[in-house]
Amino acid sequence: MEIREVFAQNLRAARQAKGMSQEELAHRADIDRTYISSLERSVYNASIDVVERLAMALGTEAAELLKRSQETSTNQVD
Amino acid sequence: MEIREVFAQNLRAARQAKGMSQEELAHRADIDRTYISSLERSVYNASIDVVERLAMALGTEAAELLKRSQETSTNQVD
Repeated sequence: MEIREVFAQNLRAARQAKGMSQEELAHRADIDRTYISSLERSVYNASIDVVERLAMALGTEAAELLKRSQETSTNQVD
Repeated sequence: MEIREVFAQNLRAARQAKGMSQEELAHRADIDRTYISSLERSVYNASIDVVERLAMALGTEAAELLKRSQETSTNQVD
């Protein structure tokens, strides 16, 4: 699975785990909501600064948002 | 410590642990050597695609290259 897809899935899961809307995450991270929506659909190739700002707004680490889970890494084998 | 600095330190450490020159890493990852040199000096704001390509060329994961170690996270407190 491509890193953009891994990031998209992790970002959405972390946001939803916090019960946060895209609107609220956008406000906290000072990033446009439509850009967050695009990131969650793997549309853009985010920079590490953006990954960091989103991670901080979600109370997690940038590395966590790029981490392949069992599910995302096994897909890579297909 | 800023994420660019964390990435710069992790990238250099992973490359040197493999005994790889910037030249060889550039060749393997199909990225310009001078860009790698700049990344190792925190000059640029790398994209996650670039982080992924460098991680694969180094036989590691993108998340590992953004991971804060004890040393890089304690600096954050200063």
